[in-house]
Amino acid sequence: MSTRIGFIGTGIMGAPMVRNLLAAGHKVQVWNRSAERLGALAEAGAVLCQQPRDVGVGVQALVCMLSDGPTCDQLLFGEQGATAGLAAGAQVVVMSSIPVPTARAQAARCQGLGLEYLDAPVSGGERGAREGSLAIMAGGSEAAFAAAEGWLGALGRPVHVGPAGCGQLAKLVNQLIVASTLATVAEGLLLAERGGADPAKVRQALAGGFADSPILRQHGERMLSGDFRPGGPAKWQHKDTRTALAEAAELGLALPVAEVVDRLFGEMVAAGDGDLDHAGVIRQLKRFNALAL
Amino acid sequence: MSTRIGFIGTGIMGAPMVRNLLAAGHKVQVWNRSAERLGALAEAGAVLCQQPRDVGVGVQALVCMLSDGPTCDQLLFGEQGATAGLAAGAQVVVMSSIPVPTARAQAARCQGLGLEYLDAPVSGGERGAREGSLAIMAGGSEAAFAAAEGWLGALGRPVHVGPAGCGQLAKLVNQLIVASTLATVAEGLLLAERGGADPAKVRQALAGGFADSPILRQHGERMLSGDFRPGGPAKWQHKDTRTALAEAAELGLALPVAEVVDRLFGEMVAAGDGDLDHAGVIRQLKRFNALAL
Repeated sequence: MSTRIGFIGTGIMGAPMVRNLLAAGHKVQVWNRSAERLGALAEAGAVLCQQPRDVGVGVQALVCMLSDGPTCDQLLFGEQGATAGLAAGAQVVVMSSIPVPTARAQAARCQGLGLEYLDAPVSGGERGAREGSLAIMAGGSEAAFAAAEGWLGALGRPVHVGPAGCGQLAKLVNQLIVASTLATVAEGLLLAERGGADPAKVRQALAGGFADSPILRQHGERMLSGDFRPGGPAKWQHKDTRTALAEAAELGLALPVAEVVDRLFGEMVAAGDGDLDHAGVIRQLKRFNALAL
Repeated sequence: MSTRIGFIGTGIMGAPMVRNLLAAGHKVQVWNRSAERLGALAEAGAVLCQQPRDVGVGVQALVCMLSDGPTCDQLLFGEQGATAGLAAGAQVVVMSSIPVPTARAQAARCQGLGLEYLDAPVSGGERGAREGSLAIMAGGSEAAFAAAEGWLGALGRPVHVGPAGCGQLAKLVNQLIVASTLATVAEGLLLAERGGADPAKVRQALAGGFADSPILRQHGERMLSGDFRPGGPAKWQHKDTRTALAEAAELGLALPVAEVVDRLFGEMVAAGDGDLDHAGVIRQLKRFNALAL
């Protein structure tokens, strides 16, 4: 079934997502602040819009794939924003990673305008966007998810995790587990090395067992090779642990492991390593132990 | 190439390991404190010995698969111990999980007797033992590993991680990463649930991404179902984090995440949950937050 979709934000993630929607037979109209990539998308079959408002006209779903919450708010709800062009009953699907309260506020605003809302942030990066294999964590009503599930399937694996805001919450949980696993693998490899074992061999021996993870395999290798070109910069990882702990505090929840991990990433950023890949947290662990880097 | 192997300790792990050695064409003579399982092993082709000393006679390698370090020491080096029957140049392969210093002391003792030594603890449990898919972390000389690598391959994936004691160190690293990942997944699922998401759906959404792990998949499911029949009892997990941190302290190494995780498991045992599966650490996290269990 073909869906007519408006898409705002055709950057590194957005552009390949639009291509996958077109390849799956959907009709896509796009708007982007800069003209970069738009020519190629037009050749692939996307309709180019002149104004944010135009991108909402006639579509069943309007996707936002922008860098942050305020930018989404402005282009959705600002003067000449895209929701002004949407018909009642259409849905707004925010796939950017934004704070949970911002997503809930957007949902309420959409409800006031007679629009459906989903927050549906993704994990899997540029490669996942290109291959259509993104993990998609969707928050919103059953009806809104049911309406979007089909075309979201062209982008990856959509899972409905709860009401509005819960997609963003699931993304925070994802980031928190990634951060803590990074710190944990760093501690394990450092213990192996300091104890006189070959950490690369230990990593190899552990792969396939209960200590295994994509972090052990991929980031563990970076920790050993010392290649910390990002990837995911440590300063973004720290922003995510900050946001997750703020959300936990809001819920009255103490997360003792995450608190230590957040401190470690904070110290890493303060030490000037914020632009390194987050696997570079092993450097902070060495610094903490007054070891040579 | 067929190797003649002596095997001490034919319990839940040892018995299927002996079967796999026999199935691979090796000659195996066994001794066990209790007669349980010995009849079946004899039918499978194992030679039964009457005394620990007999099990070392004529073999190229002597395997110890016993519950702890003192038991290994007694049956290897005690009066009528198995090393007394070994010819010079034979090797002792301790596959039990024992402290790093105990393994190093055993290696020194073997050297004094003209014997080779490997510490080669395993991960993968009863199922790994049965299927011949154990992760085998071997510490010892290059020569000792080269001599054992062939027949160890009948039991799983042997990796030479460093000199004597390093097999045990790698096992500690394995246990530490498992413990910290358990605590991390528990924190993530609890945050999801308290924030109003469906934690089972969040777990499903995260599988396949960077937050994925066997712990998220298998133990995450136990955390959500509340089925904490062991599995791996929390009290053993706590013993392992204690041992790993003692080893780290010996090396002058502070591991801030592991320290918090160790405290969490310690409190779990103190609260009376030590016999539950280690996935039950989510209960301790709830207790810590004064939430209903």
